[in-house]
Amino acid sequence: MPTPAVILLSGGLDSATVLAIARAQGLECHCLTIDYAQRHRAELDAARNVAHSLGAASHKILPIDLRSLGGSALTDDIDVPKDRTGDQIATGIPITYVPARNLVFLAIATGYAEVLGARGIHLGVNAVDYSGYPDCRPGFIQAFEATANLATKAGVEGSKTTIHTPLMHLTKADIIRRGVELNVDYALTLSCYDPDNQARACAHCDACTLRRHGFKAANLPDPTMYQ
Amino acid sequence: MPTPAVILLSGGLDSATVLAIARAQGLECHCLTIDYAQRHRAELDAARNVAHSLGAASHKILPIDLRSLGGSALTDDIDVPKDRTGDQIATGIPITYVPARNLVFLAIATGYAEVLGARGIHLGVNAVDYSGYPDCRPGFIQAFEATANLATKAGVEGSKTTIHTPLMHLTKADIIRRGVELNVDYALTLSCYDPDNQARACAHCDACTLRRHGFKAANLPDPTMYQ
Repeated sequence: MPTPAVILLSGGLDSATVLAIARAQGLECHCLTIDYAQRHRAELDAARNVAHSLGAASHKILPIDLRSLGGSALTDDIDVPKDRTGDQIATGIPITYVPARNLVFLAIATGYAEVLGARGIHLGVNAVDYSGYPDCRPGFIQAFEATANLATKAGVEGSKTTIHTPLMHLTKADIIRRGVELNVDYALTLSCYDPDNQARACAHCDACTLRRHGFKAANLPDPTMYQ
Repeated sequence: MPTPAVILLSGGLDSATVLAIARAQGLECHCLTIDYAQRHRAELDAARNVAHSLGAASHKILPIDLRSLGGSALTDDIDVPKDRTGDQIATGIPITYVPARNLVFLAIATGYAEVLGARGIHLGVNAVDYSGYPDCRPGFIQAFEATANLATKAGVEGSKTTIHTPLMHLTKADIIRRGVELNVDYALTLSCYDPDNQARACAHCDACTLRRHGFKAANLPDPTMYQ
């Protein structure tokens, strides 16, 4: 019987790769996408297409209105920064940081894993490109895993949950190479924080910058549709 | 200038008491109620009335559809257990357990606290009556606090968040006595898991049982409207 797992799927390049890796491991992948009222709504369509193309067992989109809490350019009417260098992106915490986003996402995924009887939660956090985001660091992930196992019936009864972060220490080029090996169609994914109404990427926000540089460094064609 | 704090307010007896305690400490109380698609919707009205009557600075109701994850009598179409003894309630994890509920609530509260610049999150968990709920225990709260401070910009920049659980080791009678001293109007609160359509309590679910015994043990009149 296949082993069920929860995959946090955003519709971006990283989480698509995580899903492909989990599928290659033979896991029964239940994808969870959080609709947190992000401005870049086209992500949700991308997530649907990615889940379908990579053979997910199921895909659930769960709404939670983090916009009503405020505090981020990804949910508020604040300009998304453009044309920053990789070093600028890796340093400090940008305005696109969403307060406690990964904490909220992992908490929801923990509940979902418990309902499904899944012992693994897989997500695409990365400490190379996003070293400025506290909730993308190994220390946070380890602390969360311990907390989740104290929070749930499954955890206290001995069915420990493990948080898998297979991209944690990979460069964007490494991630892309791994995904291409696993036949991920990156044309289906959307990384951009500020796409137009045809879901075409802006090419200038932090996410586009990292993605463009990644394809270039991997020496692979970039299938992204730019504006 | 008053100190802002986030109060997780359910509309029940415990969290109303937590709000009264925080108000007595002079805190500027921003109440957060999670509408998790619970069957007992009258809780939300109770939370509004409690926040108003105890002088909250603000009250936000945030929807998240935990029903769509399934797995609990509080969100699914599963019968709520009735007429259990206090010992039965305190032992094991009942069907009214909602997977990872306090983990999800605290994660959202952590994001909200960061947006508000609040360093304290106050909630009414209790390890005496709910010793069977893993997410009501001190060990979970301590682990969560450490994790939250690794997850957020505020935490890594030195503005630590503290999780306050003033009811953790109190009996229900102690909680009621403390609330009555602080002029909490418990007639406004709703603890019942299975109220009727006039928001009258069933008197037989675990929450009603604990509440009725609490008023009796405190030797105080029970203002609850029963069916």
